Amino acid sequence: MSRTSTAFPIVVSGPSGAGKTTLVEHLLRSDPLVRRSVSTTTRPPRSGEKEGRDYLFVDRPHFERLKSGDLIEWAEVHGELYGTRRDFVEAELGSGRDVLLNIDIQGGDRVKRVFPVAVMVFILPPSFAALERRLRGRGDVSAADLKVRLENARVEISAGARYDYLVVNDDLERAGGELIAIVTAERCRRERKLSDFVDRLTR
Amino acid sequence: MSRTSTAFPIVVSGPSGAGKTTLVEHLLRSDPLVRRSVSTTTRPPRSGEKEGRDYLFVDRPHFERLKSGDLIEWAEVHGELYGTRRDFVEAELGSGRDVLLNIDIQGGDRVKRVFPVAVMVFILPPSFAALERRLRGRGDVSAADLKVRLENARVEISAGARYDYLVVNDDLERAGGELIAIVTAERCRRERKLSDFVDRLTR
Repeated sequence: MSRTSTAFPIVVSGPSGAGKTTLVEHLLRSDPLVRRSVSTTTRPPRSGEKEGRDYLFVDRPHFERLKSGDLIEWAEVHGELYGTRRDFVEAELGSGRDVLLNIDIQGGDRVKRVFPVAVMVFILPPSFAALERRLRGRGDVSAADLKVRLENARVEISAGARYDYLVVNDDLERAGGELIAIVTAERCRRERKLSDFVDRLTR
Repeated sequence: MSRTSTAFPIVVSGPSGAGKTTLVEHLLRSDPLVRRSVSTTTRPPRSGEKEGRDYLFVDRPHFERLKSGDLIEWAEVHGELYGTRRDFVEAELGSGRDVLLNIDIQGGDRVKRVFPVAVMVFILPPSFAALERRLRGRGDVSAADLKVRLENARVEISAGARYDYLVVNDDLERAGGELIAIVTAERCRRERKLSDFVDRLTR
């Protein structure tokens, strides 16, 4: 499928329990021009995980070297390092694929700084009560843990309210359609249209 | 259908022969929150035309009075006056409907000045050759007339390339989907989200 617009990164953030993953999977299935960003990690592969598809697996010394300039963003989670390689994102964009990054707001900020053309989408739960219900529904959450998560969600939502787009996930079908529409619409924005195409028509 | 975003005008422009009308009809049929702007005119009603649905019919003295401040834009075509009443657009927006204006670039400029939140969409033919074919296909165009229309189209496309969105009408299905996606995406833009909704979540 050819395109008449330049490719761009798509950052999707939102509090845990807002339903990001389902929406992102829906977008990836329905839009062949969108490619998921594959993170680099020091975590060992789990059974069934494939190098290059799920993660780029590296050892810690390798990751430390990448940190000095090859990573757009990185974070430590439960003692393991996770990051996004700049050359991976640039190669995908260069081959005409929009790159989707499912990432927290700190990571999102860094992506936006490296790629100012990035489209920033924040997924919101329909209400705080709904978010609490969803987090409780996971079953493995203690009362203290739930309190921390809800407090984090509140902070994250305050920051996320500055993203370009806010998608309220009250209905998966509608919210999924909105995420797809945002990507389709952004491809039509004047500043993304390939100048040779516009030139051809205005000459 | 309720909404969590403020309504906005949608300006659709494009050269004659680019297929604007078909795309606009498609949008109106598929999105119940979009309402067509009804023009005011001094032209007498044609058979089948209904006051309020097709046009707001007024006499010339009435139109002249409207010109002194009640019209967002107006133009004279073949000796008759056509214009857009500001109160009509404001009433629709106030009731939560996005108002679609199928209008030329001069009219579009004026709408944008009165409503800076207006979303500007320009419909492009896939190529100049395609535009020429479509205009010839209408059958009632002389060679001299065709030359004038193509020259006008070139001027119009140069100006339209400054619109927010460029939709290339090479395939009706795809281009129609893009116009619908633009409206859906614009409703998700942070600055259109009703602040009481965002407040409720961040409080």
